[in-house]
Amino acid sequence: MPSSQPQPVAPSVRRQSAPHVAIAGATGAVGEEFLRVLAQRHFPIGKLTLLASARSAGKTLAFNGDDYTCEELTEDSFKDVDLALFSAGGSISKKFGPVAVDAGAVVVDNSSAFRMTDGVPLVVPEVNPEAITDANIGLGSDNVAGIIANPNCSTIIMLMAVTPLHRAVAVKRMVVSTYQAASGAGAAAMRELEQQTREALSEPGAVGEVKTQAIFPFQYAFNLFSHNSPMQPNGYNQEELKMVHETHKIWAQNENEKTAITATCIRVPVMRAHAESINLTFAHPLPEDEARRLLEQAPGVSLIDDRANNRFPMPLDATHRDDCYVGRIRRDLSQPGETGLDLFVCGDQVRKGAALNAVQIAELLLR
Amino acid sequence: MPSSQPQPVAPSVRRQSAPHVAIAGATGAVGEEFLRVLAQRHFPIGKLTLLASARSAGKTLAFNGDDYTCEELTEDSFKDVDLALFSAGGSISKKFGPVAVDAGAVVVDNSSAFRMTDGVPLVVPEVNPEAITDANIGLGSDNVAGIIANPNCSTIIMLMAVTPLHRAVAVKRMVVSTYQAASGAGAAAMRELEQQTREALSEPGAVGEVKTQAIFPFQYAFNLFSHNSPMQPNGYNQEELKMVHETHKIWAQNENEKTAITATCIRVPVMRAHAESINLTFAHPLPEDEARRLLEQAPGVSLIDDRANNRFPMPLDATHRDDCYVGRIRRDLSQPGETGLDLFVCGDQVRKGAALNAVQIAELLLR
Repeated sequence: MPSSQPQPVAPSVRRQSAPHVAIAGATGAVGEEFLRVLAQRHFPIGKLTLLASARSAGKTLAFNGDDYTCEELTEDSFKDVDLALFSAGGSISKKFGPVAVDAGAVVVDNSSAFRMTDGVPLVVPEVNPEAITDANIGLGSDNVAGIIANPNCSTIIMLMAVTPLHRAVAVKRMVVSTYQAASGAGAAAMRELEQQTREALSEPGAVGEVKTQAIFPFQYAFNLFSHNSPMQPNGYNQEELKMVHETHKIWAQNENEKTAITATCIRVPVMRAHAESINLTFAHPLPEDEARRLLEQAPGVSLIDDRANNRFPMPLDATHRDDCYVGRIRRDLSQPGETGLDLFVCGDQVRKGAALNAVQIAELLLR
Repeated sequence: MPSSQPQPVAPSVRRQSAPHVAIAGATGAVGEEFLRVLAQRHFPIGKLTLLASARSAGKTLAFNGDDYTCEELTEDSFKDVDLALFSAGGSISKKFGPVAVDAGAVVVDNSSAFRMTDGVPLVVPEVNPEAITDANIGLGSDNVAGIIANPNCSTIIMLMAVTPLHRAVAVKRMVVSTYQAASGAGAAAMRELEQQTREALSEPGAVGEVKTQAIFPFQYAFNLFSHNSPMQPNGYNQEELKMVHETHKIWAQNENEKTAITATCIRVPVMRAHAESINLTFAHPLPEDEARRLLEQAPGVSLIDDRANNRFPMPLDATHRDDCYVGRIRRDLSQPGETGLDLFVCGDQVRKGAALNAVQIAELLLR
């Protein structure tokens, strides 16, 4: 059972054997995945509070066989809450994250609101669990202490594949091109892709007129387009720059050692798993076989790298799975000796890219 | 009117005001596109012979308002033919290409059979028209003289975007990741993607069971996978190595000046236009604005590079269009100064990637 008293500081999460968990944005694609992941991993929950917008308040969601009614997210929602999982967009996190912390909760935030804020740990549990310390969570109400940020989905999936190699031999440069699923833009985007595809198939050859266009500015069915995040003056979109800057923070790189990264982020008509083509330049040689061995041993990583059968990771392999799948591991012929490698990785955007990673962060807090 | 006599040497094509044109593989996706392109460009045709497999012989295809009946491709098919456009697969080209040359035709071959053969020009008309000389076509029956090869579709589309820059400042290294359409595997592959997608949509969420799986070994609908060309011992598939080796040949680079290239080729659920994410390293600085200016002036290239509206090339922009569309032109933040650029290019695989490029080669022969 959860404490009936508000806890003044966040380490309470660790003192609670069964904390009071709140989910902000419970009816979204990631919100519903939070429930699935918490149940599957038998996360100890003393009390569960589901929070949503006024529009979605009153909806019921099932968890471990019981129905829970969503309440409207307000400033009073976090009384007694020990752990708040946020996935309701950046503006909601900015507004209510500090409120939850003030009420004594630790916030694990899936939005980009606090990722690059000094003092807020940005964590992939397999990569940098050490970023979570007593010093940066649970110290009360200075706005950010008490918040732990979940990285961008594309960043998480990339770093699951690259970090095991980077630990062995420093990665000096990365060139990454993504193949991103609809789910990154939420459940409505997945429905839009589905509906558009039905419309396109209304004529043979999939050339039917696509009328449903609410989420994305372009036809998505049988098409692809540059990621729809805001474009920056340097010609990179925000998604791409997140992959650059979040990597530097997660790897705790100082100015002199920052890995040079360029990213091109593209949405492809796939439902919920991202893929990434990654080209690496190492500071010293890293033989292909050694890279394969390192990835075989990496937690949260599975290899699909079967050249004989031309069988490599696909989004459908990763869909609804916890692991990130890595393959096409090969020496880069365009770089001298064994200083370059190419990889291809797939990971479930909703799961490891969002809900699972956040719950894994929460598990670190329980220890 | 075409000559009624067989022409002993290929320069005949240039002497004919209206040559006798044969199409080998007329009923395929590229074969039908040959007809469309020849008609749209008012290619002078004195006589048209459509050739297909025994299975497809007897089919009729329309050209300029008339119906033509496909004949079975045999060793006797090329009597009086001045120009033979081949797109029936590598083994057919290997067997019948030299037969057509012996009969006095010039062959423009869309397969990979002769691309890397010494003495066979490998041509993108906007890039290396000079590769076609009297010395390498029309010299009769030594097997390859008289054959001109059409490059791989991904290579053509990449070089349409990169060559105008390479001419200004040498490209030292390229890292390319492709987003390839179904059409590259032919008309049956396009139908398979369409049918699989209908099957996936038989259940809400596009999770219906996909049963149609004849062309590709994996589900294609709402999925993507590593290009299904044969895998080489070095971990690259043939499609990827074509992009490397064909580029060196088309750019006529000697061993010391060869651009270092690595490619990752991926099939995405798009019908008939390829996309490519291209990262470039230059020998000397090439400012972004200068690159944009060069591409604006390049024949066969159109820019879609509207940062204000996040509007960049998409496969649907290129579908059924002649030009290759280039955008996302930006200084690569991961390389020093202005020595690196990122680009994104889309081109119709059936058209500029195959039929159009071949017809453009034939137009060079007419001059």
